[in-house]
Amino acid sequence: MNLNKLEQNIISKKTFLCLGLDTDIDKIPKHLLSYDDPVFEFNKSMVDKLSKKIAAVKINTAFYEARGTDGWNSLGKTIKHIKEYHPDLFTIADAKRADIGNTSKMYARAFFEKMQFDSITLSPYMGYDSVTEFLNYENKYAILLALTSNDGAVDFQLKNELYLSVVSESQKWKNSDRIMYVVGATKSDHLLKIRTLSEKSFLLIPGVGSQGGDFENVILNSTQKNKRILINISRAIIYAGNDENFLDYSEKVVDYYNSRTSL
Amino acid sequence: MNLNKLEQNIISKKTFLCLGLDTDIDKIPKHLLSYDDPVFEFNKSMVDKLSKKIAAVKINTAFYEARGTDGWNSLGKTIKHIKEYHPDLFTIADAKRADIGNTSKMYARAFFEKMQFDSITLSPYMGYDSVTEFLNYENKYAILLALTSNDGAVDFQLKNELYLSVVSESQKWKNSDRIMYVVGATKSDHLLKIRTLSEKSFLLIPGVGSQGGDFENVILNSTQKNKRILINISRAIIYAGNDENFLDYSEKVVDYYNSRTSL
Repeated sequence: MNLNKLEQNIISKKTFLCLGLDTDIDKIPKHLLSYDDPVFEFNKSMVDKLSKKIAAVKINTAFYEARGTDGWNSLGKTIKHIKEYHPDLFTIADAKRADIGNTSKMYARAFFEKMQFDSITLSPYMGYDSVTEFLNYENKYAILLALTSNDGAVDFQLKNELYLSVVSESQKWKNSDRIMYVVGATKSDHLLKIRTLSEKSFLLIPGVGSQGGDFENVILNSTQKNKRILINISRAIIYAGNDENFLDYSEKVVDYYNSRTSL
Repeated sequence: MNLNKLEQNIISKKTFLCLGLDTDIDKIPKHLLSYDDPVFEFNKSMVDKLSKKIAAVKINTAFYEARGTDGWNSLGKTIKHIKEYHPDLFTIADAKRADIGNTSKMYARAFFEKMQFDSITLSPYMGYDSVTEFLNYENKYAILLALTSNDGAVDFQLKNELYLSVVSESQKWKNSDRIMYVVGATKSDHLLKIRTLSEKSFLLIPGVGSQGGDFENVILNSTQKNKRILINISRAIIYAGNDENFLDYSEKVVDYYNSRTSL
């Protein structure tokens, strides 16, 4: 999916929400455990229920890898289901990869070709040539970590304004129109600085739900020139309820956030 | 495996070598393609052939993920084989992960519990709390990227001496004796600086084989106080030959490097 289409979807659906599927088999409703693949069943029903009220889906690969081949299977089935039944949802592999060129090429193949994600999150630490293989794909996007929402962001990202250096340097790279940035909502005072350096870039903003960032301020600080943001919420949506009506609880959380969105 | 044992193995086996299994199904000898799982067959025969002449094995997860569930299966079988038949080999998941705490916990579970790797490579960009979950495991090790061997290392790592900051900061973290560092051999002039900051830490040094770093200088600059380094070579060993005698070619490369090692 290209970014103009994604922006149009955000405006027409009146939602900035990205649904984060951090699906942990120990936390999903117990009645799903009788299915062959409970994690896939959970993801499928969650996406089917919410697809008209969200703009994107982010799948956190760690939760799938923790279950080995079974998890990898659930991941593959989930992305296949979304591509087939909800092609208007922008898909993000939250994988935080990046490596030397010939290795990044393999990761790009895994996530863009084998699984057909629209985008993947990448750590910028290794620099330009660790990202470039991902930027060679038309209509696919590399989402660089700029400023993350965890406490440890102060350790290196905020030192010498490394997070701004990541944004300004990467804006010079070839195909930089295929770069998006992760900007933690818990650091919304830094958001305006990043916005100034990357006016046209999409921002992926985590840390609003369970991590406690300020929803309205985040929108205010990042959407003055366009509507190019996605606000990710994972646990606060998917674990809103834990009984047979879990999807209704999740929908209420989505409705709550969308009602606070001026679009 | 603990690091004293690893150092003893290095000294008794007279090798610093880590075998990098960047196994690409398109590059392995054609006669292996008749096996059910050619990649596992390649890895198994490579490790069985070389185990007495190497100290560690590094498995690059990208090459397995690129093949989806099949690849994930080959990866699982490879690590299982090594643990069962070659328990004296230190195992490294070259995965370059790290994320917010609850996600890193899942990656730790995937690589340390599900697959029982001894260690995993991590990007330090997200700081302390993205690493800490990995440091909670006794006799397991987090290998932080400090200075990598690719051209892009200049983009961020060398700016404001970020790579030294990563080493000095992380040395203050709890359980920092479970931290190792990736230090690219192509930047061997920086090696001494890192060594000064982390005298007792194991260093994982890539970039010697296909990437062209200087083998003798690397050893000279990093082993003055102890023998705590691993020099990784991937492609130059595993793709040394491509016919039915491929293992003999690989062994010759290993012998060549070990003959240049003063231990």
